[in-house]
Amino acid sequence: MPTVEWDEAAGGVRLIDQTQLPLAEVYLTCRTASEVAKAIREMVVRGAPAIGAAAGYGAALAARAGVLEAGAAELRAARPTARDLFAAVDRVEGAFHRGGAEEALAEAESMARESAEECRRIGAHGAALVPEAARIVTICNTGSLATVDYGTALGVVRTAHEAGKRPFVYVMETRPRAQGARLTTWELRRLGIPHKLIADSAAGLLLQRGLADLALAGADRVCANGDVVNKVGTYPLALLCREHRVPFYVAAPSSTRDPGTPTGADVKIEERAAGEVTNFAPPGTQVWNPAFDVTPAALVTALITERGVLQEAGAWRA
Amino acid sequence: MPTVEWDEAAGGVRLIDQTQLPLAEVYLTCRTASEVAKAIREMVVRGAPAIGAAAGYGAALAARAGVLEAGAAELRAARPTARDLFAAVDRVEGAFHRGGAEEALAEAESMARESAEECRRIGAHGAALVPEAARIVTICNTGSLATVDYGTALGVVRTAHEAGKRPFVYVMETRPRAQGARLTTWELRRLGIPHKLIADSAAGLLLQRGLADLALAGADRVCANGDVVNKVGTYPLALLCREHRVPFYVAAPSSTRDPGTPTGADVKIEERAAGEVTNFAPPGTQVWNPAFDVTPAALVTALITERGVLQEAGAWRA
Repeated sequence: MPTVEWDEAAGGVRLIDQTQLPLAEVYLTCRTASEVAKAIREMVVRGAPAIGAAAGYGAALAARAGVLEAGAAELRAARPTARDLFAAVDRVEGAFHRGGAEEALAEAESMARESAEECRRIGAHGAALVPEAARIVTICNTGSLATVDYGTALGVVRTAHEAGKRPFVYVMETRPRAQGARLTTWELRRLGIPHKLIADSAAGLLLQRGLADLALAGADRVCANGDVVNKVGTYPLALLCREHRVPFYVAAPSSTRDPGTPTGADVKIEERAAGEVTNFAPPGTQVWNPAFDVTPAALVTALITERGVLQEAGAWRA
Repeated sequence: MPTVEWDEAAGGVRLIDQTQLPLAEVYLTCRTASEVAKAIREMVVRGAPAIGAAAGYGAALAARAGVLEAGAAELRAARPTARDLFAAVDRVEGAFHRGGAEEALAEAESMARESAEECRRIGAHGAALVPEAARIVTICNTGSLATVDYGTALGVVRTAHEAGKRPFVYVMETRPRAQGARLTTWELRRLGIPHKLIADSAAGLLLQRGLADLALAGADRVCANGDVVNKVGTYPLALLCREHRVPFYVAAPSSTRDPGTPTGADVKIEERAAGEVTNFAPPGTQVWNPAFDVTPAALVTALITERGVLQEAGAWRA
């Protein structure tokens, strides 16, 4: 079952509710752009490529209802960081202006299909970088749930696994929303890929003691200079990798690259609600809760895209 | 109310149950070495100096009951990493061999008193390093709750606050047991020191965006070469500090130094139960849960002890 799927009979886009995983597998159908925007804001759907696909369908729904301008605005305001969201809404708007609502939906559909295909190509290119029996550390969720299907960084693991390379995955919990603990472990178990969950802070000792051979992360936006904006905690992981001479790979479709953002310092980092962090804290505790950080291009060993493996100028090489 | 206190009327050592904070303030009295060892294992009492004081009283209780050898062995086995636990049991054993059970208790009492005094001296030495209106990032709990009274790294913050320096604290949640979220925020609120809670992974962006002026951590053991063994996550924080030219200070009594441990690589790192990490994960998820990591001496700007501020050879200076 794809994470994001058009359901013509129901007149909307069908999403798996990721806020309820791993405890319950619940699907819901969004029939308006507003409903899609709400699902993105509340992280019912999350992961840059999945957000992009959902936003594309959301814009198509707005086009069909004759409210594309308002719908597109609401979708663009749903989350500020992921490049894919903006790119998807732009593409559906373009299609609408060329051919109306039917063309808009066809564009959303082809984006979703392309996205799933790109993930398989990312997996194939990336798996070539994964040694036999590699111990891989990863952050957040970059699997099927983060995409239309198959995954980006986790798609690389999956392809390596399917090729018989026997990867082992250390899954960073990924506080505050615990996408690693909730979603990545759930996907890896279904795929039969052996793994252990670790606290985010344990990545330091993991690398210090030589327990990981490579790191894999996704990206919400890749800046013009190669800086990578991704889930908060990605940057400390990349810094640890450089310190311990472990390759740090980023897997993302090439559409994640935003020529309009010169460097990571130019990115507005989304800050989310305090309640995501206060699970264990006294009521009323003040919080600083940024959702992303910036990994400088120099810490990224290579970027794995559907077109191949790209090494940034000045990037650290394993 | 001290964290660890002898209660002669009750015939035992009184502890605040730190597993129940911040939701409930519950005290319990341990009347045997076994009860103290259990409280240490289950982290009813935690924090290296508090563990040391509790273990001292535990050994004194064993001496009084005529089972010092067995009691000392059980206490030493309670947790493997903190230097203070072993030092305290050794001292009480020495006192017992000099002067019997009364001498053993007197030794435990004077260790607890000394420990509280050391913390105040650590606070005074450390506060001199804290600029006006400093923004401080800290990990775990190193306050009154981690000691007999006053705290180590948090004692430095407290002294700076009492001197009118207006410090602001970013509190790392400190997964998996969330001592930062549960205990440090609770102490800071009672002290009236302004603070914000952050996910551990957010320390990267915090330093990247220039939002912290210094970092303060405690220590469970300082190796002969100056390597610091402390709560898992301390090492990534120290690495971030060096990368961003932010001073990284460790505050601990000089008894934390263990001449018998040459380097951090020689330390047995305690691994704790999976259940500490699986809050958000599917049932049965496999876990790697180390409680500590090693910060190389070269990343520690200075060690703040009761005797003064020590800079290791080769340490990075701010």
